[in-house]
Amino acid sequence: MKQYLKIDEWSIIEESFDPHNHEISESIFSIGNGHMGGRANFEEQYSGRSLQGSYMAGVYYPDKTRVGWWKNGYPEYFAKVLNSTNWIGINIEIDGTPLDLATCTVSDFRRVLNMKEGTLSRSFVARLEDGKEVKVESIRIVSMVRREIGAIRYAVTALNFSGNVTVTPYLDGDVKNKDSNYDEKFWNEVEKGETADGGFLTLKTKKLDFHVTSAFAYDLTLNGEKLTPEAASELRDKYVSSTVQVSLNQGDQLVIYKYAANVTSRNHGLGQLVEAAQTALASAREAGFAALLSEHAEAWRDKWKESDIIIEGDVSAQQAIRFNIFQLNQTYTGEDDRLNIGPKGFTGEKYGGSTYWDTEAYCVPFYLSTADPSISRNLLIYRYKHLEKAKENARKLGFTKGALYPMVTMNGEECHNEWEITFEEIHRNGAIAHAIFNYVNYTGDKSYLGQYGLEVLVEISRFWEQRVHYVAHKDKYVMLGVTGPNEYENNVNNNWYTNRMAAWTMEYTLETLNYLKENEASRYEELVDKLGLEESETSLWADMIAKMYYPADEERGIFLQQDGFLDKEIVPVKDLAPENLPLNQKWSWDRILRSCYIKQADVLQGLYFLGDRYDLDTKKRNFDFYEPITVHESSLSPCIHAILACELGYREKAYEMYLRTSRLDLDNYNNDTEDGCHTTSMAGTWMSIVHGFGGLRVHDGRLVLQPSNPGHWTSYSFKIVFRGSRLKISVTDREVIVANETDVPAQLKVYGEELTVGGLSSVTVQQTVSA
Amino acid sequence: MKQYLKIDEWSIIEESFDPHNHEISESIFSIGNGHMGGRANFEEQYSGRSLQGSYMAGVYYPDKTRVGWWKNGYPEYFAKVLNSTNWIGINIEIDGTPLDLATCTVSDFRRVLNMKEGTLSRSFVARLEDGKEVKVESIRIVSMVRREIGAIRYAVTALNFSGNVTVTPYLDGDVKNKDSNYDEKFWNEVEKGETADGGFLTLKTKKLDFHVTSAFAYDLTLNGEKLTPEAASELRDKYVSSTVQVSLNQGDQLVIYKYAANVTSRNHGLGQLVEAAQTALASAREAGFAALLSEHAEAWRDKWKESDIIIEGDVSAQQAIRFNIFQLNQTYTGEDDRLNIGPKGFTGEKYGGSTYWDTEAYCVPFYLSTADPSISRNLLIYRYKHLEKAKENARKLGFTKGALYPMVTMNGEECHNEWEITFEEIHRNGAIAHAIFNYVNYTGDKSYLGQYGLEVLVEISRFWEQRVHYVAHKDKYVMLGVTGPNEYENNVNNNWYTNRMAAWTMEYTLETLNYLKENEASRYEELVDKLGLEESETSLWADMIAKMYYPADEERGIFLQQDGFLDKEIVPVKDLAPENLPLNQKWSWDRILRSCYIKQADVLQGLYFLGDRYDLDTKKRNFDFYEPITVHESSLSPCIHAILACELGYREKAYEMYLRTSRLDLDNYNNDTEDGCHTTSMAGTWMSIVHGFGGLRVHDGRLVLQPSNPGHWTSYSFKIVFRGSRLKISVTDREVIVANETDVPAQLKVYGEELTVGGLSSVTVQQTVSA
Repeated sequence: MKQYLKIDEWSIIEESFDPHNHEISESIFSIGNGHMGGRANFEEQYSGRSLQGSYMAGVYYPDKTRVGWWKNGYPEYFAKVLNSTNWIGINIEIDGTPLDLATCTVSDFRRVLNMKEGTLSRSFVARLEDGKEVKVESIRIVSMVRREIGAIRYAVTALNFSGNVTVTPYLDGDVKNKDSNYDEKFWNEVEKGETADGGFLTLKTKKLDFHVTSAFAYDLTLNGEKLTPEAASELRDKYVSSTVQVSLNQGDQLVIYKYAANVTSRNHGLGQLVEAAQTALASAREAGFAALLSEHAEAWRDKWKESDIIIEGDVSAQQAIRFNIFQLNQTYTGEDDRLNIGPKGFTGEKYGGSTYWDTEAYCVPFYLSTADPSISRNLLIYRYKHLEKAKENARKLGFTKGALYPMVTMNGEECHNEWEITFEEIHRNGAIAHAIFNYVNYTGDKSYLGQYGLEVLVEISRFWEQRVHYVAHKDKYVMLGVTGPNEYENNVNNNWYTNRMAAWTMEYTLETLNYLKENEASRYEELVDKLGLEESETSLWADMIAKMYYPADEERGIFLQQDGFLDKEIVPVKDLAPENLPLNQKWSWDRILRSCYIKQADVLQGLYFLGDRYDLDTKKRNFDFYEPITVHESSLSPCIHAILACELGYREKAYEMYLRTSRLDLDNYNNDTEDGCHTTSMAGTWMSIVHGFGGLRVHDGRLVLQPSNPGHWTSYSFKIVFRGSRLKISVTDREVIVANETDVPAQLKVYGEELTVGGLSSVTVQQTVSA
Repeated sequence: MKQYLKIDEWSIIEESFDPHNHEISESIFSIGNGHMGGRANFEEQYSGRSLQGSYMAGVYYPDKTRVGWWKNGYPEYFAKVLNSTNWIGINIEIDGTPLDLATCTVSDFRRVLNMKEGTLSRSFVARLEDGKEVKVESIRIVSMVRREIGAIRYAVTALNFSGNVTVTPYLDGDVKNKDSNYDEKFWNEVEKGETADGGFLTLKTKKLDFHVTSAFAYDLTLNGEKLTPEAASELRDKYVSSTVQVSLNQGDQLVIYKYAANVTSRNHGLGQLVEAAQTALASAREAGFAALLSEHAEAWRDKWKESDIIIEGDVSAQQAIRFNIFQLNQTYTGEDDRLNIGPKGFTGEKYGGSTYWDTEAYCVPFYLSTADPSISRNLLIYRYKHLEKAKENARKLGFTKGALYPMVTMNGEECHNEWEITFEEIHRNGAIAHAIFNYVNYTGDKSYLGQYGLEVLVEISRFWEQRVHYVAHKDKYVMLGVTGPNEYENNVNNNWYTNRMAAWTMEYTLETLNYLKENEASRYEELVDKLGLEESETSLWADMIAKMYYPADEERGIFLQQDGFLDKEIVPVKDLAPENLPLNQKWSWDRILRSCYIKQADVLQGLYFLGDRYDLDTKKRNFDFYEPITVHESSLSPCIHAILACELGYREKAYEMYLRTSRLDLDNYNNDTEDGCHTTSMAGTWMSIVHGFGGLRVHDGRLVLQPSNPGHWTSYSFKIVFRGSRLKISVTDREVIVANETDVPAQLKVYGEELTVGGLSSVTVQQTVSA
């Protein structure tokens, strides 16, 4: 764990340059806009260790699967998040010596991620080997307004010399993926060219033919005066640059404004790419850097209006939650229903794929409460569009009907290759069904069911139907050979969570069928026909719901994570010598598997999802049993525990779990932030506060809050969007203020009491949750 | 399944050349001598599909592990069987046109593996594009007498032309391993040189510094007259050749005698390699090809004396069993206790490693009965020498004491990387312990226990001690998270076989301790001291033996392969539609895992190993339950079923199982013989006859036979070596003849009756096993 960043409410600040931290900072200071983004690589050349990363959403590479031992059913490829053209590059030479922070003496270094306005800035003084000193100040944005535009202001001041500065802004498509399975490069050049003040470059992927055109242009000023020196272009394989030389007197400041457009064949016809890039570029350049910056900052201010969480009395916690919200907002913006939320967003390439069950289980709740419902709806439609692929996936695994959504995907096809996960971690299907419930429950948009939801629900139910089988001697349906959310158990029988979510899916499917039959009869008929749904299927589901096998221990009054769980040696984590942790680094895999230790919420995940089906005592008994043996080695675990701990009144435990999740990347808790941030789990941090401390639930279409103060904060507040209103909920030790920021009146329950909060007004309620 | 080979009692014969079968034949016609060997590659150049393979026993390459998802505990490398210098090569050109069977018209092709004398020969007529025809007759041996020597007689006759023949015998070390993980080559050149009639080449492996020196020389005759034409050497990277040109008149026969020596740094000092090779080579060349052939054939005759099985009335079965015995005898000869029996012997490189549990479970019984006891003893000492590595392996997996032998190894270190096998298929430890029992029981050599056996037994018992744990609510010791011999179940709890062999190991360890205490008191004290053995350990083992948990079903009276087995859908294999088989090609891995289907004997393996502990009824109930759901997709499965079927009087089933195992490679049953033969499972074929039909057992130091005739053969006979005597057991439908081929009298039981068979005499017993 490294803590080298300055604590600040609105910014992430690095105040000196340590090359050992650079790759971590490259992850943390990443910026993006949903369409594209990249790591906080330096503009100028840097010969030290760095992970170059520039990513275009939805552009991926089907890299040939690498595996030790092939298992039947593995996919042929893994969809890699694709490092694409470096468009930020501006090389600098001072009298022929490259400016390179790995070879200069660096002072006054400061890197700032301004989360309020979405800017990445950097300043430093570099002393070259020959003693010349320059001051550099840069600021970079990936525009939230013009999704294809990035812009940089890069200022160089000659501090102690007069001399020539050579400036080379460029596009470089000759990039590698560190995560490439066989150390191959993934791009071919299509075309390139120079223009008056820049150039363009079109690459296409070696497979799938994704085209990306990048174009750049630049302006220069010397001490604020526009400068138009002679430029020399260089065009070589997958590379275009333009070089100018400017002679500076001591004290002079040269500013480079670099504008870049990045357009892809996902959004433009192949023949139109260069024109599209040039058009976007020209318009951005004409607006100028200041205007781009200003409209971008304004867009960020709007995002914060909907999603900010304010914590008073704890700057570290404040910074952390804003960092989490910032990352989520810049990763996925919801306009494009072909996109999803990759595990590292635009901050790295590791793990590949863009879509995991994290989206449904963790991210959908965040977007439901902080953005227009259309954004969550698009996340759901994304899966609807992949339904045919999910059916193919089920066929591939030997199922004659139904759909199995992939563990990891870019385009709906499975690309993960680890049998115990790929083939057995099928609970993901349950989360996808549950997200439909969640969306409809939260938004009230029942039209979704007939339009899209039912088809997905029926195909998932059909999958579960074949995945269980009846065992006569138990008079129950069992499900063998699965891996639950707790990936520290593989290939187990009757994982309680999976069985429960399977039965729940079938229940909700039957309920949805009934709803449509009663309320949208013609659509219902149409769908039954389209799906070829038989009465024998629905009646079998009813039988399965009634006779699903749930492992349990009567004596302890708990659900068992799986068959035979109590044959394990149950020793609380706190009794393990510290040198055993983290288990995934200290123990061999078999030892982890046969131990009782739980990577992430499993039974408890089910008690959270289906919270209104279980009473507090049941939750308490299970929490008390499972929490002490949970090691939280998945970033998705502490948030669920935090939420349940709040519900059970375990304030200290809830706060401990919150801390564990919120500063995971900022403090490099798992020692892997250099690979990128844990983007999807950031939604879990948000959930810890809003569903946990805030106690937000939606029951029968009614917003319900049960706010508590974790006891370490003066106060906190969060925003939620609900059915047309936007509420700001502020919680102190004594009271809860519900402020309606819209003119749509809101009805809700706080501490069990009905409240109506009129438009643009607020209501104060006394805190009743005891400390 | 391809059947293109001619049926013959003593030979494998291929009578026409089909390039599609060539790689299969390269495997089947392989020859070796325990020290080295290789695939039946052609001597002359061949541009068609071929897997070049020349292997030196014990010389391997630690190839960087390739894995999709790393698990803690995986080894850094996989020890690959290493393709080394091609020493057989003799390129031929006819008037400048290469002789290449891929580009000529081939007729009268005949390839013969003469198993009686251990020769590989080939003859064919090749018509070149220009119409010239040559006849080629070659014969090759890898000497059983001079372990470093290979020799070839290669005759070329000009059939319809007069012209120049260019002959280029060579050594080529620039070879690849098809099984390389990252497509790398593994050898560097050390030195090379030309000599009067040949040359030499020393290579070393890029890692581990294995050195191999090959040297060759050749003689020529024209129509039987010695010829000494001018030779031109060529030396290039990792390559040495010598080229001569001979002009032939129509009808002339040119014969090339190529001699090669292959010596390794395993047997010679680095500075002595070239000299050692040259000395061996000179001596072989001086002896001449005919003498080499004759002494080699004599050595093979001696091998057959000890190990032949004769089957009358079924040439196909006769050929098959001899092929199996031939492969075993040429793979491992037992002189070198650093060697073992790789899964493909000298017939291919796939799977890598040289040592699997196959050695102890399948091969030791073969060598015990067909060779001097020192050979089996060496196989056991091999594991003794790896004890420290096995202890390290256990430490690596978190055990504080004890030893876990590797799944796959060359030097004692684990090199397999698949968690469910590497970390969980720990039953291998039981087989290694059981082989000690087997050896001592069969040979009566109790001195082995004090010298080597006990240490291995204690360290394995210590491993089991930590691998089980006590469960209070069952008052039993359980073992979680294992993979049994049936690899179609992974990560199961309480695999009956593994639990049983664990308890058995502890029992045998305690028994051995008692034996030593009573019979070798000072050695006992020494060992207790060396091992630091505590009374608390042995008393814990006694408790574990008493309270080991064995899953069972009372109602059916069977042992359960693992916890929860009866929750599976039990459908006999015969009720599966044929398109489902083989499961490992048709079903995804998860589907296989959750099915009831068994890859190879598991519970039944235990009932075979510990056959004297279980009554026939118990064996019958378990066989009747498990056999119908076993798919035998491991080559190690049918033999165990054949043996038990014989014991239970299921004659047809036994014969079916025998057929399944014996012609596996000859008929390319699994469609993978091109990768190499299934060498270790060949010992299982031998066991099917001797332990199965012959009913051989050793109880309390007494040889016991219960011979039966499978009913498809006129008669069969097999040889067994037992405590100084060699017996030939002949079985017809009516009688059993036990002939003692030595002058050491033998005592045995046949059909429960005591017999004494005097030296060089025989006894006839009436068959009592009913048809």
